[in-house]
Order: sequence, then C-alpha cells, then structure tokens
Amino acid sequence: VERSPSEMENGHVQLYHLYIANAPRDSDREKYLEVENKFTGKVEAKVPLATPEDIEEAIQACVGAAPAMAAMPSYQRKAVLKKVVVELTNRAEEIAKVITMESGKAIKDARAEVQRSIDTFEVAAEEATRINGEHMPLDISARNKGLQGIVRKFPIGPVSMVSPWNFPLNLVAHKVAPAIAVGCPFVLKPSSRTPLSALILGQILAQCEELPKGAFSITPVSRTEADLFTTDERFKLLTFTGSGSAGWGMKARAGKKKVVMELGGNAPCIVEDLVPDLDGTISRLMIGGFYQCGQSCIHMQRLYVRDQIYDQVKEALLAAVKKYKVGDPMEEDTMMGPMISESAAEGVEKWIKDAVSMGGKLLIGGNRKGSFLYPTIIEDVPLEADARKEEIFGPVVLLYKYSKFKDAVDECNNTQYGLQSGVFTSDVNKAFYAFEHMEVGGVCLNDSPSMRVDSQPYGGVKDSGIQREGVKYAMDDMLETRAWDASGKEAL
Amino acid sequence: VERSPSEMENGHVQLYHLYIANAPRDSDREKYLEVENKFTGKVEAKVPLATPEDIEEAIQACVGAAPAMAAMPSYQRKAVLKKVVVELTNRAEEIAKVITMESGKAIKDARAEVQRSIDTFEVAAEEATRINGEHMPLDISARNKGLQGIVRKFPIGPVSMVSPWNFPLNLVAHKVAPAIAVGCPFVLKPSSRTPLSALILGQILAQCEELPKGAFSITPVSRTEADLFTTDERFKLLTFTGSGSAGWGMKARAGKKKVVMELGGNAPCIVEDLVPDLDGTISRLMIGGFYQCGQSCIHMQRLYVRDQIYDQVKEALLAAVKKYKVGDPMEEDTMMGPMISESAAEGVEKWIKDAVSMGGKLLIGGNRKGSFLYPTIIEDVPLEADARKEEIFGPVVLLYKYSKFKDAVDECNNTQYGLQSGVFTSDVNKAFYAFEHMEVGGVCLNDSPSMRVDSQPYGGVKDSGIQREGVKYAMDDMLETRAWDASGKEAL
Amino acid sequence: VERSPSEMENGHVQLYHLYIANAPRDSDREKYLEVENKFTGKVEAKVPLATPEDIEEAIQACVGAAPAMAAMPSYQRKAVLKKVVVELTNRAEEIAKVITMESGKAIKDARAEVQRSIDTFEVAAEEATRINGEHMPLDISARNKGLQGIVRKFPIGPVSMVSPWNFPLNLVAHKVAPAIAVGCPFVLKPSSRTPLSALILGQILAQCEELPKGAFSITPVSRTEADLFTTDERFKLLTFTGSGSAGWGMKARAGKKKVVMELGGNAPCIVEDLVPDLDGTISRLMIGGFYQCGQSCIHMQRLYVRDQIYDQVKEALLAAVKKYKVGDPMEEDTMMGPMISESAAEGVEKWIKDAVSMGGKLLIGGNRKGSFLYPTIIEDVPLEADARKEEIFGPVVLLYKYSKFKDAVDECNNTQYGLQSGVFTSDVNKAFYAFEHMEVGGVCLNDSPSMRVDSQPYGGVKDSGIQREGVKYAMDDMLETRAWDASGKEAL
Amino acid sequence: VERSPSEMENGHVQLYHLYIANAPRDSDREKYLEVENKFTGKVEAKVPLATPEDIEEAIQACVGAAPAMAAMPSYQRKAVLKKVVVELTNRAEEIAKVITMESGKAIKDARAEVQRSIDTFEVAAEEATRINGEHMPLDISARNKGLQGIVRKFPIGPVSMVSPWNFPLNLVAHKVAPAIAVGCPFVLKPSSRTPLSALILGQILAQCEELPKGAFSITPVSRTEADLFTTDERFKLLTFTGSGSAGWGMKARAGKKKVVMELGGNAPCIVEDLVPDLDGTISRLMIGGFYQCGQSCIHMQRLYVRDQIYDQVKEALLAAVKKYKVGDPMEEDTMMGPMISESAAEGVEKWIKDAVSMGGKLLIGGNRKGSFLYPTIIEDVPLEADARKEEIFGPVVLLYKYSKFKDAVDECNNTQYGLQSGVFTSDVNKAFYAFEHMEVGGVCLNDSPSMRVDSQPYGGVKDSGIQREGVKYAMDDMLETRAWDASGKEAL
Repeated sequence: VERSPSEMENGHVQLYHLYIANAPRDSDREKYLEVENKFTGKVEAKVPLATPEDIEEAIQACVGAAPAMAAMPSYQRKAVLKKVVVELTNRAEEIAKVITMESGKAIKDARAEVQRSIDTFEVAAEEATRINGEHMPLDISARNKGLQGIVRKFPIGPVSMVSPWNFPLNLVAHKVAPAIAVGCPFVLKPSSRTPLSALILGQILAQCEELPKGAFSITPVSRTEADLFTTDERFKLLTFTGSGSAGWGMKARAGKKKVVMELGGNAPCIVEDLVPDLDGTISRLMIGGFYQCGQSCIHMQRLYVRDQIYDQVKEALLAAVKKYKVGDPMEEDTMMGPMISESAAEGVEKWIKDAVSMGGKLLIGGNRKGSFLYPTIIEDVPLEADARKEEIFGPVVLLYKYSKFKDAVDECNNTQYGLQSGVFTSDVNKAFYAFEHMEVGGVCLNDSPSMRVDSQPYGGVKDSGIQREGVKYAMDDMLETRAWDASGKEAL
Repeated sequence: VERSPSEMENGHVQLYHLYIANAPRDSDREKYLEVENKFTGKVEAKVPLATPEDIEEAIQACVGAAPAMAAMPSYQRKAVLKKVVVELTNRAEEIAKVITMESGKAIKDARAEVQRSIDTFEVAAEEATRINGEHMPLDISARNKGLQGIVRKFPIGPVSMVSPWNFPLNLVAHKVAPAIAVGCPFVLKPSSRTPLSALILGQILAQCEELPKGAFSITPVSRTEADLFTTDERFKLLTFTGSGSAGWGMKARAGKKKVVMELGGNAPCIVEDLVPDLDGTISRLMIGGFYQCGQSCIHMQRLYVRDQIYDQVKEALLAAVKKYKVGDPMEEDTMMGPMISESAAEGVEKWIKDAVSMGGKLLIGGNRKGSFLYPTIIEDVPLEADARKEEIFGPVVLLYKYSKFKDAVDECNNTQYGLQSGVFTSDVNKAFYAFEHMEVGGVCLNDSPSMRVDSQPYGGVKDSGIQREGVKYAMDDMLETRAWDASGKEAL
Repeated sequence: VERSPSEMENGHVQLYHLYIANAPRDSDREKYLEVENKFTGKVEAKVPLATPEDIEEAIQACVGAAPAMAAMPSYQRKAVLKKVVVELTNRAEEIAKVITMESGKAIKDARAEVQRSIDTFEVAAEEATRINGEHMPLDISARNKGLQGIVRKFPIGPVSMVSPWNFPLNLVAHKVAPAIAVGCPFVLKPSSRTPLSALILGQILAQCEELPKGAFSITPVSRTEADLFTTDERFKLLTFTGSGSAGWGMKARAGKKKVVMELGGNAPCIVEDLVPDLDGTISRLMIGGFYQCGQSCIHMQRLYVRDQIYDQVKEALLAAVKKYKVGDPMEEDTMMGPMISESAAEGVEKWIKDAVSMGGKLLIGGNRKGSFLYPTIIEDVPLEADARKEEIFGPVVLLYKYSKFKDAVDECNNTQYGLQSGVFTSDVNKAFYAFEHMEVGGVCLNDSPSMRVDSQPYGGVKDSGIQREGVKYAMDDMLETRAWDASGKEAL
Repeated sequence: VERSPSEMENGHVQLYHLYIANAPRDSDREKYLEVENKFTGKVEAKVPLATPEDIEEAIQACVGAAPAMAAMPSYQRKAVLKKVVVELTNRAEEIAKVITMESGKAIKDARAEVQRSIDTFEVAAEEATRINGEHMPLDISARNKGLQGIVRKFPIGPVSMVSPWNFPLNLVAHKVAPAIAVGCPFVLKPSSRTPLSALILGQILAQCEELPKGAFSITPVSRTEADLFTTDERFKLLTFTGSGSAGWGMKARAGKKKVVMELGGNAPCIVEDLVPDLDGTISRLMIGGFYQCGQSCIHMQRLYVRDQIYDQVKEALLAAVKKYKVGDPMEEDTMMGPMISESAAEGVEKWIKDAVSMGGKLLIGGNRKGSFLYPTIIEDVPLEADARKEEIFGPVVLLYKYSKFKDAVDECNNTQYGLQSGVFTSDVNKAFYAFEHMEVGGVCLNDSPSMRVDSQPYGGVKDSGIQREGVKYAMDDMLETRAWDASGKEAL
C-alpha cells in the first residue's frame, strides 16, 4: 500500500506526489513547488511540478479512459464516490489541518470545508444513479405520426479542471465529484498556492480500483504549461473557478469546448428588517463580511442598511468586529487568520486607502500587519473606488444607508458582477421582489450572500460567470443530450 | 394598417422593410440588398441594408426592452406566439412561394417548412406558460437545518441571432419563438441570400402590440456590420446557425456571452436491415440524400450498407435517382430545384471530381448545369477526400459496404462532425447500441439522419456545434437559473 | 348537420338530446328530466333520461373504444380539444346564458365559468402532446448490471364521471378534457339539476370525427341507474365531484377501480394584515363569501380576523354586503341570484337560525325569500353548530376574532375538512408557516380560499376528498404507469 | 443496551418482542404466535400477539407522532435510513438465516432478499433529501395576472401497513423505508407466518433515537384485531401486499383513506427468440418458474414459446428441471426448499391434478412430499383450469406453443391479472409492441417476468392491484400535494 503523502517526510519538508493516470508520480522531476504555511511562512511541503510531457501523458490517458468511464455502471461510479466520502470522513481532522496550513484559514472554517466536501461527494454518489432521460411522444403533427423519442444524457468526455486556492478542497470536489458521477475522466490543475488537499484527494482516488486507468490526473503546473488546460481541443469541457480576469480570457481561447466559469463578485446585502432580531442579523453579517478574510467569491462586500435601523446595525457591527479574534488559524477560537499572501494583504490595504481618500469613512480596521489585514468597515465609499467597483477579496465591508427598498435593489444591481446577494426582510412581497429583480445567481433570504448549500445551483451572471455548479447542475454541463427517434411503431 | 411587403412593388422589384425596434424602416437607406429568384436569376426584391447606426439603435432598444419583456405575463407571451401561428397559417401559401423564390427549394419542401414553422411557434406558445421552477429542501445536513430553496429561471436578456439561408423561415423560428416564449428581446440578422421570409415574420411581429418597443429588430446587414452580433457585450446570448468555419470563429470572439452554435455535419446512415422493407428504406434514403439539394445540416452524406443487402439497395437507389425530378422548383412534382448559387454548385462539382480522382466510383450524377447539380452517388470515396471529410452541402451520397454492424458504427464516428445519424435495423440490441455509441446529437432509428421534430432537442457534438435547439431546449439557454435560499422557517 | 339543441323547441320547452357512443339520442325515451329556470321557476328544457339499456350500451361502447382511444396519436387528441376551445369561444355568450338559466348563478359568474372552461380545454390540448415518460438507469447494484428501464404512462381505460351542479360546465370540463388528453373513453352523468351545458359539450364533441365511436357518452340518469357509474367493474376510474356524504359512500362501493373524489369543505380564511389594503382585502373576501351564493366547494365559510383590525374589517364587510346586489341573475350588475332550489335555501336558513340560537350573533342577512337567501354574516358561532362543523354551501360567512396567528391556523385546521384556505399576511414567515401547517390542498396567499387557476393542482385532504384535479393532475390519475426493463445492452 | 431477540432464548425457543411506539414490549402478553422452521417443522420462536389495547396504543402514538415526523429535517430522516442500511449490512447473514428458517426459502434467495432490502433502504435514504416541489407561473390568462404558485408535497400522516410472508423483509422494507423517507409514522402488521425479520427491523429502528416516540409500531396480531389496520380512520393510507381476495375486500372497507394494493398475478412470458442464446433464456426461465417455489407475485406461471423453437425450449427446460436441487434450504446449493406450509403444497397439488384432468399434459413434476412440491411443467392447460385462471403461487409452469407474436400478446392479456410479463425477442418493433400492448405494470425485455429492481415503479393493473411501489413511487402515495398561490407580486 502507498504511504500517505503526509507521512513522507523529506527532512522536515513533506514531499507530495502528483497523480498522472491514477498513479502517484515523483521520480526525475526537476522542478518543485514549495508550499508555505501561510501563518508561519515556513515551507512545509514540496510538490513536483508537471512537465509538458507529463501533461501530454495525462491528456492522452484521459482521452483513452473516456470510453471505459462512459461504460462504468452507475453502481460503480457511486461506489468510487462513497469511498471518497468514507476516506474524507476518516481523515477529516488531518485534512482540515492541511487546509489551514496551506491556506491560512481558521481551523473551524477548514473543518467546515471538509464537512462540506463530504456532502459534495455524497450528493454526487447519490446523483450518479439518477441520470434519468425522457421518453417523448413525437407525434405532435400528422406528418410525425408513429414517431416516439428517447432523450438521454451521455458523458461529454475528457474534462479540464482549474481550481482556486480559497477553498482548496471543496471547490475541487465540486468539479471532481460531478465528473466521476457522470463518467467523465479529467485532468485537474489545483492552485499552486494550495495544492495539497487536492493531492490528498488524488491519493484517495488512486486507491479506487474501479476507476479505469487514465480516469484522473492531478497535476500542479507552472503558468506556461497551464495554458494547455484551456486550449487543448481533446478536452470537451473546461471548468474553471477563479478570477474574472483569468476566466474570461480562458473562455476566448477555449476553442470548441464548453466552458463553465465560476468567477468573482462583490456581493451585496440589504438589511430592510432585523430578522430574526438584531443579534441574529449581526451574526450572519459578520460571517458574510469576514470569514476566511473575505477571500470568498460570495464575500459580502457591500452592505445596504435601511435608514431607520442604520445606526443600530452600524453600532452592533462595530462592537462585533472589536470582539472578533484575529490570529493563529490553528487555534480553536480564532475567527480569522492571515490572508493568502502579504502581497494580497497589501493590495487590499491599498484599495482601502484609495476608498478613504476618495471620500469613504473608515469606521474600523484598515490596518495591516504582514499578511494580516484586520476586519474593516468603511462608510459611503463612492462608486468609482476600486473597493466598490471591483472584487476586493479581503475582510472589508462597505456600508451604505438607504431609505427605499427598491432603490437598494437597484444599487445592488449597479455593478458588473452578479453572483449572490443577501436580503434581510420579513415582508413577503419584498422577498419575492428581490428574487425577481436581483441580477444574481442566488438570493439569500434573511442571510448574508455568503451562504451556499452544496446541492443547490450555484454560479453567477454578468461578469461573475457562466453556467452553474452545485453537484447536479455541474453534472448537467458534463453531459451531452442525445435524442433517439424511432419510427415504425405501427409495424408487426 | 401597414401594407404587406409583398404588395409594395417598385417597378417589378418588391421593396421590403427591415425592422428596428418593432417598426418597419426604409427611408434614407443608401445600400440595398438585391434578392434573386434562385431559379430564374432575376432580382425580385430589394431590402435595405442596416447601417451601423441602425444596429446601434436596435441594440439600444433591445437592451431597453429587456425589463419590459421579462415582466410580460406568460399569457401575453403566449398570445404573441399564437398570433404568429394564425398569421403563418393564413399566409402559408404566399410565404411558401417566397421561400421557394428566394432559396430555390422545391415548393413541396417550402410548404413543409412553413408547416414546421407553425409547429415551432405553436410549441413555443404552449411552453411559454410552462416555465416552471423547483422548490428544494436544503436541509441536507445538520448545518443547513431550516433552509429551503426555490430555483427559478429568468430571461437572460438581449439575444443576438444569426440565421442561415437553407431554412430561411424555420431556422429563424427556432430562435425567435423561444426568445418570445421566455421574454428575451432580440436582434436578428437573417441570411443576406434569403432575408425575405424573416422580414415577413418581422411584419407579423410588428403587428403584435403586446410586445414592448425594442422587443425585436430584424436587420439584414453586410458582413462588416455583422460582427457586432458576435462581439457586442450588451447581448447576453449569441445563437448562430450556419457553417462551422464561421461559427467557431464567432465563439472565440463572443466575449462573456453564452453561445449556441448549430453548425454543419456530414451525417451518416447505416442500413443493417430493410425496415419496413426495401421500398420504405429507399424512400427515406432518397429524402435524406437529396431533399433541398442536400443543403441541410442533416443531409445524409454517407451511407453504409450491410454487405448482404448492398447490391439490392444500390440498385434500388440508382433506379430511384433516375426517376427523381429535377427542375423548376415552383412546379408541384419537382423534387429538387437549383442550389443556392452557381458557385455553390461549382464547389460541389469540384469535390465530386476530386473524390472520383482519388478513387471514388461515380455511380450516377456528378453533372452540373448552372446552379443545378444533379443527384449524385459515389462509391468508396477515400477518407482523405473533402467529400468524405468535410460537409459537402450538396445532393451527393457516398456509398460504402460493411460487414459488421459495430465496424459501421465506428466508421460513422470516424469524422470530426457529430450532428445526427440514421440506423435501419430491426434488432433491439443494435438499436440501443447505436444510441449509446454514436457520437451525435440525435440517432434516427429506421430513418435517414435527416429527420427532425421541432419539439425535440436538436444539435450536434464535436465540430457540429454546442448546446441544443428545439423549442424547450433553446428556451433553456435563454434562461438563467436563479436560486432563492430561505432560512427562518422555524420562526413565528 | 345536427341542429343545436337550443334550437330544437318543443312548444316553448327546448328538447335536448343525450349522447350515447358519440351520437345524440332521443326517440323512444319514456322518461324526461325537466330543467327549470332557477330564477323564474319555469321549465325551460326537457332532457331524456337514460334507461338501463342506454347505460349498458354506453358502457359497452366505452369499453370497445378504449383501444382506439389509446392508439390515437397525440396530435389528434389535441385537435379534438382545440375544436372544443374554438366552439366554446364561438358560443360563449349562448352557453353562459344557459348556465345562468339552469343554475341561477349571476351572468358575470356564468361568463367567467365559460372562460375558465375554455382555459381548461386549452391547457388539456397542450398537455396532450406532453405525456412524457422516463428513461432510468437500473444498474444501481452489481446484480442489476446491464439493466436499463423506460417508464411510460398509458391510458387507464374507461372512465366513469359524475359531476355536480354548481359549475355545470367547468367541473365537467375538468373531467372530460383530461380524459380526451390522455386517450380514455368515458361515460358522464351530469347533474340532473343542470344537465344542459354538459349536453351542449356533448353536441360539440359529437362533431369531432377524430373520436372513435364510443369515446364518450353523456347521460342524465335517475338516482337508481346512477349506481352503475360507481359499481360497474368495466370502468377503471371513477371521478366524482360532489358532496362528501355521496362521495365516501361511492368510494366504498367502487370495487377495484381507482377513485378521485372532489368533495366539500368549509374553507377558512385568516386576515392577519390588510394586503394590499383594506379595500383590496374586502373585495377578495366578498368574492370568497358570496359569489354563486356560496355554492362552491371553496366558498369562504369561516373568516378569522386579527384582533387589531377586527372592527375595521367587520365594518367594511357589512358596508360591502349592504351594497351587494341580489336579484335577477341575467342582469348585468347582479352579484348574486337565487340558490339552486328553495329547499336548499331553507336548509341554509335553518342552519343560520340554529347557529344564532346556539350563541352566534347575526350581523347581517339571514333572511330568505323563496330560493333567495341574502348575504349573511354571523359572529362567534360555536364549534358545535352545523354552520361551523359542516359545509353550509350558502352565502354565509362566520366571523371570528383572534390574537395569535398560530392559534388562527390551529383553529382553521379544527375541522374534518381540508380543501383550501386563504391567508392575508405580508409576513414571509407567516406565509410559509401557513403553507407548511394548514391541512388543506391549497393555500391562497393574500386571497380568499375561493381562488383557483385551472392548470394548478386542486383538491382536498381529510373529508374533502382524495387525489387531485387540475388538468395535468387529473390526467395523471387517468394514466397507468408501465415499466419496461431491458437487459442485454452488453450484447452485439 | 437491549439484547438482540435472537439472543433471548426461552428453553430452545427464542422469544421476540413486538414494538409499540418505538419500544419493545413483552410482559403480560397472554397470547403468543409460534413460528415454525418451515423445513423441520420445529417451533423456533415465540412472538407475543398484540392485544386490542396494544393496537389502540400504537395508533394513538402514531397519530401523536405525525407532527414531529413531518417536522423532521431531511438529513435526519436520511440518517435513520442509513442506520438501517448499516445494521442490515452488519447482520446480513444472521437475518438471511432467520428468513430461511421462517419462510423455507433457499439460503441463496434469503441472502439476495437481504441485499435487496439494503438497496431499498439506501434508495430511500437518498430520496429523503430529494422531495422537491414545483414553482409554477399561474398567469396563464389575463384574469390570473400577477399570480404565481408553489406546489409542494407533505407527508400524508399515519400509515397502516400489512405485509406478506413471501418476502418477509424486503416487502416490509418497501413500506417502512418510504414512510420514514417522507416523514410518516406507521403501524405495521407483519405476516403471522414470518414475523421475525420484520421484528428484527423493529429492533434496529428502536435504536434510532432521531425517530420521535410513536413513529413506528410493529405488531403481529390475530385476524380479528387485524381489521383495525383496514378500518381505523386515523390512518390516512393503507398499504397492503398480499392476496387479491384479501386486498379487494380491504379496499372496500378502507373508508376515506388512500389505499395501495400490491396483489397477485399469474405472470406470462413470451419466448419469440432465444436471447442471448438457449442457455441464457433457459437460465432466466428457470428462475422465473421456480425460485422460492414460485411463491412470488411475479412468478412466471405461463410460458408461451414460438412454434419454431418450442421443442428445443421444452427439452432444455425439462433437462434443467431434472438438475434442479430441491431440499434443505440451509444448504448452499439448494435451489428450492419447502413451500410455506403443507396445506399450501396440497393446494398446488390439487390444481395440478385438476389441470391434468382437464386435458393438461404433465411433462415433469406434480409430485408432493409433505410441504415439498416438486418443480412442475404442464403443457396445454385449458383456460378454465384454476391453474390457468388463478394465481397458483407454486413451482408450476404452464407451457404453450404459439405461432404469431401478436396472438401470444393477446393470450398473455387474456386474464384478470396484470402484474408483470416477460418477453424474449431481438426485434425492436416487437419489443415496443409488447411495451405498448401488454396490460401489466411491467414488461421485462429478454427476461422472465420475475425481475424487479427496487428503485423502479412496481405494481399491477386489473386485479393485480392499484398504485405503485418502488421507493420513490411508494413515497409519492405517502405524500399529499399542497398548492400555494400567491398574488400581489406587482406590489412594493
């Protein structure tokens, strides 16, 4: 049996394998990625970087595995996914610690991510046996008399996956689990900043003998080689989660393949009423604004509060921020650790300063210490500031007052992004109005926009992306519809 | 009331309007498109060409109409579509004649096209009131307790449409009807070769007062201006039907918008058994091979016949071709008229000659007279010939013999295209094998690949396209999924 | 061509035909039903009563027609239903007047019923081509490897229909239209009090030549013969709309057939908030309480108003009742005509008196004049009174005050019935609470319980019935599920 | 912790508990059921019989538990079902032996039953989180403008379950698992002949603390008390699997509750072609004809073989019967054990003799030894014989020759039953013809009629039952549809 990468120490630096055609690979690598502990800055792990030859081998194996993957019975696809569920459950604490180490996120958030990844694989296991088709009458006109049809869905073939660093396991799970559920082989490029949890998943999959050779490869690569993930025409689908600047460029170079783009946002939240009460509202807003240092696509960047309760909410938020524990992410009660890098923190710091210089009023935070950027709330940042226009991807909340619900909805829509939004209201008409008029992929009623259940459709409109993830929905893009028209039923 | 364009004669040349923001437009045009009768070569109609300013106006109106279109109740969208059904029904013969004139297709095929367009609008009218969403339990894990969700679909917004000349009405209908059904405004560029039936549709829509101003524009344009249909980011969806060479290039330049590409093919057909009998098989093969001069995406270009019945089928096909009436498309018993242009016919002629020079055996046809290219069957054309590799889009059938069904399926798949295929077999296992293994969007059992019912999903894989049309399926791409997560059900 | 029954006058009394095996039938009838004008009391029409031999003939023809009905292509079933749409539309005013004459309902309500019947047939026409099945993977376990399934729905066979007098056309339509849509032949017993509009429908159907002989019979019968509609085992489904006392007895005697029971109720309504405002609320409450003299299964019998707005609502309701025009139902501005019979009015009068004698406080109405019973509101009727316990089926509203929403919901549920309920609230949590906790088939948000859209599922729980109507849902009970399991996909 | 009933020995006779309101119960029972080993005849277990007071207590607890069951989040219902999966998996061999002991079925069949029961609970666990509803546009007409609807399904309430002895675990699972999946409490009466495996399931459920008190009771009862399962109006659904004579009588006395009846049949099979070959066909026919001594609702009682292959099939079947091992069901290679009782075997023996006396030709078998009845094939049994008309429920196959496929289908339909059928054919048109014309709930293509996958819809038409089981389909009958109509979306 293969040893766990976590056990393979090289000095004090652990050596991880990459995976090509289901198998771990190490020997003869010349280049390695060094993975730092984002809190201590110490290099904790080394990962071989895939060579162009590796990637070619991975793609060829992937193409070769496609027929066998497509032919796997549903109970076998399910069995693979359930094995992953069991292994992630058994190793949950170990993996949570790796995630915290490689990403800097608080251990409580890392644990939640592992639990969500388990859900993601479990939902996929269940969906694997539920890929139903339709039988349709086609005799809708006299000239089609005697015709009937069956419409089924078949796996699209080799899938190219590129995943981000902010949820190093669950955003990998949201690509890998659907692919296995439908029977598509894949090559995955994990983020170079946080490749370890994806490689642990690779180790788990390598033990699943039901998977045909070539079913998966997981290959950290340098930026140069990464381009093949976008351009190689042997891939039938490119699924990317990451920044808009990268994503839209990839779409243009993706050739004939389908693309799924899960990109950024600057999610707004409206507080029209305190639901269920002040404490309940503040508790959800704090999560939306500051979990994972705001390094989430659905981070609550903009907060619109009704004039009548504005002062009350503002005061309570500031009090909550003061109590928010920032520090070593491995400590149990830490709410927020460092950002992914010092340069990321510097970038956020700069946008905060710009926002203030353009007229925003800094209510709290704004200070930085290395890669730590402290929870920040700024009032009345003008529309032109990057902090308002763009995705800040940091622990910063912009606070605004409004007097009419409809105007608040319009202002939420006043952006190029459209991922998710939150609306606190007890009014049924406002709740439905928000659903019908917010230009987003998801409206969270009486919650911050940062809520996601892994079985639901998830994704953005406008610059925030194209197509949806969420297990069943991600599967849908990995399936091609094929119709079967049969005539001659009158015969015998 | 506006007069019908068919009535507006200018000398003997009829003048048609283009439509911008629901209204006919003519005055002050400098450039006109001349539409020839494809049989006589005589210019029969003139159509103003949209200027860049026209297109900008159309797009602005389209963007402006999006909220009103999205807000239309379903019964109004249905009412518009039913008015089109009534008008097309009332004017069926007139429109069929326009189609034959502008496209050269036989009047019986033009009439069939009008009937199918009526079906397309009728199915859309019915679907307009059936855009259902889902209510989902979201409490799949303890941490999601109390959550429930609604998933609905909302119109994507302004749609850019580019349609081809081979079905000048029904392939327009397959874009326009779904857009109205879901509530998306659109700008349509009809083919410059056959713009008239699309403009008649424009005339009908212009009479539908339920449509908000800007809901539609139909604008013939020159190639230069046409690029805006691809690149303008105000469009949220580009739906194109046409050649692969054009389509894939458009996909790359489409920016952030979704794309639907219905492109070409070189559809294969397998004859394993004679179903229901020899005559029945031949009759379907003749349609697949020669209707509309093979100018259809699902023209049966390749025919694979089982060795045991090969000679019998070949002989019967040749006999049928000899009886096939080619001539004036306005005559009732004409089976085939001219091709769309002399240069198109020359191109097919050249590929036939190449195929023969490379070893193919010309069994019948191959001769050309002006834009008439006579029904052609060639045996054993090698894989390298353009006639085998590419889409020939002419009345040419390549005939091959095979001995094993599985090999025939593999040979059908041995192409970059994947639109539809036909399979004649009485064997249930072979029928299902074909369904599961043919790399196409549709398998026609006991029919040529040229069969399509307008309510079914339709479209290709590989180089033949991306996404599906067929009313309900085209609607699906014009809709964005939006989730609504509600917490707090425990309250009161 | 057959003459319209309305034209066949016999003295001043019109003679209608009954329909057996698609054909009108009159000669040699010995017994006739006399149909009175419910306002004038004058006999206006005579209808032959079916003999036992007639019914046997109808059932035999129905059984004989079942295979042909099942084999009708979907476009033909749709064509029949669309012809009915056209005929009902053309004859709308004539039929509305017949309905008012035979039922006594106000002409504006009769016209609304005809329009709704048109919708019912139109929805059915559209659903006729949408009876889809499923393709299912069956390889959910290793022992089922290689299995796949198709699940389709097939018409259940001969249907027995018994319809009530309160919606003489639309509650017939809700049985007849689905039966034609799925391909089931039927025998219908219309109410003996209001058989005419059903017979006009028979006349329309008799002109539909697509229907195989025996597809339908419409036979008014005396109570004795009617029992066959319940007990004859050749019927595969009994669908009954009427009183609970009749319905539950029929269920027990229905033998092996499926039963659909749409029975009575004493529908409650809660007014927690005034939505959209006082006038809007009152307007909906007046409809719920008094349209058709309360002779509707979803008549708002019980009204629970929040204490804070109780006096306001009460006062406004009383004012509205005072302005409510009661009188000749043929007059354009009449809101309410006579009840179906004097004995019915006497029964309601008795219950009102009982309710008052048991402690209820009569706020308005309670008076009777022949078959006219004037709009009545009673306060605080105790639980034990028949007017509270049972279905009153008259223009009577019981008014109650409450202070807690949850208690009002509990009180609404405190009955053996469960058809529909109304809830006026602007609170999203209360709206969802009502949805989740009201023991009914339908909750009308911000409307009285008397609302119904003909495409939605409709029907009751508890003593109010079993199964659902609403076109698609009624169709579902007229279809049997049949699975097709196929093994051997590995072969070739 | 409670001890396993299997461990609780009383002398050599094991004492089992019954379960009332989730808890085991024994003390003070006066009457006990004695469960014999069906092979040895020895009493192996005693089970207390529920008293009328017990049943009243169980029903009251069931009614009381309904709100709590309905309120259980989906993840908890799933958790209960997954616990059952785990326990059945852990105790599979123990339970298989109990099933063989109490039922006499061969140990290999008992093991298969346990595995299928695991599937049944697993599918239910997965479905528990997938009870989706619909969002519907209701603005289908101008008068419904502004309306939208949500349609959801809610648990129907207390369920009464009566299960048979031939699959003592899996046919219990098919009632219990769906009830837990939807959130319905239940009282189950297992067969008095084979109550033990149901009681082991009770033991497992008793350990599931998520279940509210009263969620389930499992109570063997004498025939007198059993009537409450049918008549008590507090139950909202009666689900019965067993004989038609019992079932149809129960339906008539079931009052207002819904009924699901899974009754008997005399399933036919057609062999038109040998698919995949002679051995493959014979192997499936032997299972269909003789597994579990034919004591299955879908036992292949009638076999119709095409004339051209009749002698070949007959000879091969007889050879296979000669090799079929009949004996001690605990032995690994036993194919068939005793019937459920000597009187059952005597009944079958009598019908065999009658059939032969009426002209049938006994080809093999017909002999009985105690409760063993040997595999029997009879040729040309006339239509009037009970063995042909009724359900024989024994290891008897009636063999017939035919020459036209269509006639064979007609003859299959020539019975009052309609559960399942088998069809061996390689012809796609015959396969679809059979699907469309066989009056059954399921058609097994290229298999005997005895095939069932636990996730598919299952059940009969005609005298074979009403409604469907199969997890998702059984759940559907345990759910009530409730609509929510909302107006006022225009507001704000």
